[in-house]
Formats: sequence, C-alpha cells, structure tokens
Amino acid sequence: MNIINFHGQKYLAKDFIEFLRGKNALFLLSLSTTKTCEIPNITQAGIEGKIHLTPILDAEFLCSGEVRSIGDIAKTAKGVPTPALITRAIHLLKPFNNIELLNLGLTNSPKVNFFKIYDFKLKPSERIDLGANIEAETLFEMGVEFGKNYKTKSDYIILGESVPSGTTTAYATAKALGYNCDGMFSSSFKAHPKSLKNEVVNKALSNISSNMDIFEKLSKVSDNMLIFNAGFVMALMQNYKVVLAGGTQMASLLLVMNSIIEVMQGEIDGKNLALVTTKWLYEDENSDIKGLLELLNFDVLAYYSDFDFSDSQSEVLKLYDKGEAKEGVGAGGAIFYGYLNNLTKEQITKEVEGFFK
Amino acid sequence: MNIINFHGQKYLAKDFIEFLRGKNALFLLSLSTTKTCEIPNITQAGIEGKIHLTPILDAEFLCSGEVRSIGDIAKTAKGVPTPALITRAIHLLKPFNNIELLNLGLTNSPKVNFFKIYDFKLKPSERIDLGANIEAETLFEMGVEFGKNYKTKSDYIILGESVPSGTTTAYATAKALGYNCDGMFSSSFKAHPKSLKNEVVNKALSNISSNMDIFEKLSKVSDNMLIFNAGFVMALMQNYKVVLAGGTQMASLLLVMNSIIEVMQGEIDGKNLALVTTKWLYEDENSDIKGLLELLNFDVLAYYSDFDFSDSQSEVLKLYDKGEAKEGVGAGGAIFYGYLNNLTKEQITKEVEGFFK
Repeated sequence: MNIINFHGQKYLAKDFIEFLRGKNALFLLSLSTTKTCEIPNITQAGIEGKIHLTPILDAEFLCSGEVRSIGDIAKTAKGVPTPALITRAIHLLKPFNNIELLNLGLTNSPKVNFFKIYDFKLKPSERIDLGANIEAETLFEMGVEFGKNYKTKSDYIILGESVPSGTTTAYATAKALGYNCDGMFSSSFKAHPKSLKNEVVNKALSNISSNMDIFEKLSKVSDNMLIFNAGFVMALMQNYKVVLAGGTQMASLLLVMNSIIEVMQGEIDGKNLALVTTKWLYEDENSDIKGLLELLNFDVLAYYSDFDFSDSQSEVLKLYDKGEAKEGVGAGGAIFYGYLNNLTKEQITKEVEGFFK
Repeated sequence: MNIINFHGQKYLAKDFIEFLRGKNALFLLSLSTTKTCEIPNITQAGIEGKIHLTPILDAEFLCSGEVRSIGDIAKTAKGVPTPALITRAIHLLKPFNNIELLNLGLTNSPKVNFFKIYDFKLKPSERIDLGANIEAETLFEMGVEFGKNYKTKSDYIILGESVPSGTTTAYATAKALGYNCDGMFSSSFKAHPKSLKNEVVNKALSNISSNMDIFEKLSKVSDNMLIFNAGFVMALMQNYKVVLAGGTQMASLLLVMNSIIEVMQGEIDGKNLALVTTKWLYEDENSDIKGLLELLNFDVLAYYSDFDFSDSQSEVLKLYDKGEAKEGVGAGGAIFYGYLNNLTKEQITKEVEGFFK
C-alpha cells in the first residue's frame, strides 16, 4: 500500500481508506497571512519581500495553473517550488470534484473566476512577537457557524492550508496551550532557523499569562487559519469525513481543538477525521508529527502518502528529497486522494515535471 | 461486445447496457446463512465446519481486502477461492461508488468500519429439511418497506449475494411454488451432489401442502435472502435500475417475485431490472439459467459477462474454467460494471492473480 498509517487503531485506519477508495473529494484550501512572515528569515515559503503573496499565488496556481498576482510562482530562496505544484498535478490527473477557497485574512483576493472564494472579511493577523491581535473567540465561533451550515455533494472533504510562517505560529499556539512540544514543529527550511524561531515564539509567549482563558491566549500567539479551522472542523466532522491535509500545522489545529473541547468539557469523536501528510514531513528529523499527535486526548487517524521525487531527474524537485520544503497546500492529502483513485507515483512525478517544460 | 445478452428484447437489452455505460454503481451485498449449509457435502462454498462464516468473510474481503473473522479466505475443499476475489479486483480497478451490506441473518456481524451494514435483526434460518422456520410474510414486507425508503446517490444498484447452500434453498423455493425446474439449479461443485440435493429438497417439500398460501410455503422451504430481496427489489426497481448479480439463486428470486405478483394480481414492469451472471454459470451444463428465466410471466433482461481465466497461469484460478465455483458475491455483475467502465479481461485477470502473490 502506498498510503501508510502511522497513528490510530489498525482496522479503523485500514477501513477509513478502504471506504474512501475511488470516492470523489472536495479540496478546500484555507488561506491566511500572519505578518509573522515578515520577520526576516523566519520562512522560505515565498519570494522575499512578497511572502504575503504566497497563499494568493498558491490558490491561483492550484485553480488555474497560472500565478496572476505576481510574475513567477512562489518559491523559496533556493528555488524550491511550492508544493502547490503537487496538488495541481493531482488535480490535472484526477480532478477534485471541486476546489473552494477560504480567505481567512489576505492582503488581496486570489484572481480566479468561478471558483468559490469564501471571504470572511478578515485582515492578515499581526506578528505574534507583537501580540497577533486576533479576535479569537469570535473567529472560532465563525468557524463553527460556517461548518454547521456547510454543504457539499462531494463524498469527503480534504482541507489544506497555505499560511507562510504558519509552523512558527503553530508552535507558539501549541506551546501557549501548555503542550510539551519543543522541537516537534517543522519548517520550510532544511537548515532549521531554530534560534530565530524560538526567539519569536518566546517573545510571543511573554505576551500571555496563566490567568488568561484559552481564547485570550490564542488571540496573542496564533493565526487565523488555526483558530477558524478549529471551529470549522469540529462542526464539519459531524456531517462529513474530513482529511486534514498538512503536517505540524494541522497537528497544531488538532491540539487547539483538543484544548477547546477540554475547556468545554465535551468530547471529540475523531472517527470522521484523519490527518494526511507527506513522506518528507513524516520522515523529517527536525520535527515530530507522531509526537504531536500523541499529545491528543482523542483518537485520530493519521497517514503519510508514500511519494518522493526519487524517480525524477529534476534537480529542483530533488530538493524536496533533500529536506527543503516538505508539505503545504495539502500536498500529502492530495497524493492520498490520487492514490485512492489509482494514480501512480510515476504519473504524478511526470505531471509535476511537466510544469518545468 | 464482452457483455452478452441471452434473455429479453434485443433493443431494450442493448440500450440498457448502453445507458449504464460509464455510470457509477452502488454494490449492495446481501448476506445470509441458512443452516441448510450444515448438511454434510451440500455445498463447497467455504471451509468445512465453518461454512456459516462464508458470507461474513466474503463481506470483509470485499470491503477491506482482509478476512478478519477467521485466518484464511473462504475457499472450497478443492481450494477454489471465493468469487469475492473477482468482485474485489473490480473494485480495486474501478471502485464502486459505494459498497453496502445487508445482514439478513448471520452468526456474527462482518468486522468492517465505515461501510454501512443494514442489520435487520434476523437469525440464520433453519435447515429446509427441518422446516426452515422463517416468518416469510413479515420478512417480505420488511423488504418492501426498506426498498420504498431506500435512497442512493449512485446511478444504479448492483445487488449480489453470499448465501452458502443457497442454490439448494433456491431450488426448493422454486419447486415449492410449482415451477418445473428440476435439473435447472446450479451448484458450487462441479461434480454436482444431485442425489443429496434432491433428497434435501424433497424432504423440504414434504413439509408443505397445496392448501398453504405462498408465504406459508416460503416459510418452510426458502431462505432469508430470497424472501427479503423479493420485496426489496420489487420496491427498489420503482426508483432505480437494479442489476441482480448472480446465477440461479437470482433467477429463483425472480420466480418468487413472479409468484407473489400473481397472487396479488399485480404486474411487474421488468424494464428497470436485469440479471447478470458469469460465463461459467451461463455455460454450466448442470444447470439452466435460461430455462429458469423462461418460466417468468414478465420480461426481464439477462446477460453474462464474457470473462474466464483462460489468460491466467494460475492452477487455482483455472479451476473456475473447469467448472468448480461459478458465481457468487455478484462476480458476474461486478465484471459487467467493470466492462462498462472499460476494464479489460487482461486487467481483471492480473488483479485477481495479484491476490495470490
């Protein structure tokens, strides 16, 4: 099997993917900008000085195959292209039933027609070292409300994200909620800028205190994607099977859900929920997705898609195998969907290579 | 064409399959155990002493690719593996829109998650030579009620079955209803245990008398699958196109419908209905599916899928071509669906062979 289960009950994990075999999926891409990404060297997910455009460009490329809000596709300083390429390749080979976009605070709206963009009239959140300034409780409730009313004809939902510097805010978020998660969060860099990241996170944590409630804490240290989606997913999974397509940011989202439900003295039945990531993220030595999931008080299934660029001749793509860029724009979840619809590693590799011709 | 029409109006038959070309299908597997299967040597559909597990294992394998309620996949004494292999192979190559299970009286529930199991709280029926002891009228009405309310998003429905010793109960059923059907019913054996089968059927028939009404007769000689599905299919075909995927048991089901509608002085419009079986069953010299269909007072389309293991090197699979095992778990209907979605004989053969590697 090219989809590898690494967390959750064995039979349940097997049957979850068997049940989704061949089924159609809605791909929902949640987009947001935290000004944390403006801190020099905090992320390589984009073009320096224009990193706030990354989610916009990712959305444009995923939907249309073109980047419209700037001349070139979002890539890192070393030239590692966005994982949106992988998600787009899957969509070309075996189209998602639909792609929809959640605008959770961007500088501009993605320039695409016809594709539904849910606009929640949010601004990019502030740098977490300066206090983020998010109305967390309202935002969480917006997510719940949206999830309750959300309808799709698709068999299941894949929820991805594009949030530059999102691993930093995800780390700060989990830590602020009291989880022992040092060293467990990923980075878009191979050479992990740990000291800088730790400095930013510690600065962020200095703005919270133990007498704050959970939403007050989130307001100071988190990002819009995590807070909105916590509410959204909790409501959505009552009605649909949901694949959280991402790495440590999605794990942080689960931890936010875990903490909120604890405060509310409720329970989460994770049966309709799975996290799916890439092999690069799963095997990353500088983060620990498995460890993060073990911090949860509820059961959740998790998998990685067994895909890499070992079959490719492309030097640019090989950078993925070397640990630069690992996950994003739901790449791991997209491959999962592709594999469940009989796409092969060879086909996917070829399709991604096609973007460079 | 690799789907061969052998009963019904020519243009109608052609257009029925043309209409279903490329469409998606729900695969519904009806499962039941009649204790008739405990009569020594009556069936080879399973592992001796554990034949009551066969429908459970078939369901588990179809859904998950694993047999969970026992160590090994259900196979005959000669080592002919269950036709569930074929249905599963089709599902892997071109997944059904959905698989759902009807528990019509099993010793245990199949161990699968997420897949819908409709549980009608029925027990395995008794040996027909001892009077079967089925509440036939109630069961038929349950089927009607279920069919009336049944909803699916799929384009059409393939209804298969796994009922060990089901050909014996199907024969007894048709004969009890007055049809001249001696020698027309199939067996899982090549070397047909005719004298034993006839003895059991004659014993069953000795428990009914001509003054009994149709449901009283069915209560004594039939099985849950036939009685429930008679009601279910009569209601279901009002709203959906239905493919009865099976051989002489499905023909007996049609005969039950035929007799009930006669008693009710109603009419059946068979336009939404087709029986689809395997080539092995169609060409079987020890049974006569065509003859059975000719006993009906309404029109129904029937086909066989032109598939065998002549391209395979596997000695085990070759046993099918030699007449051991012929049909079951909707194999013929599954191939029909595969062919209408452009699968080739070669692909299907390879996929089945893959299970033995």
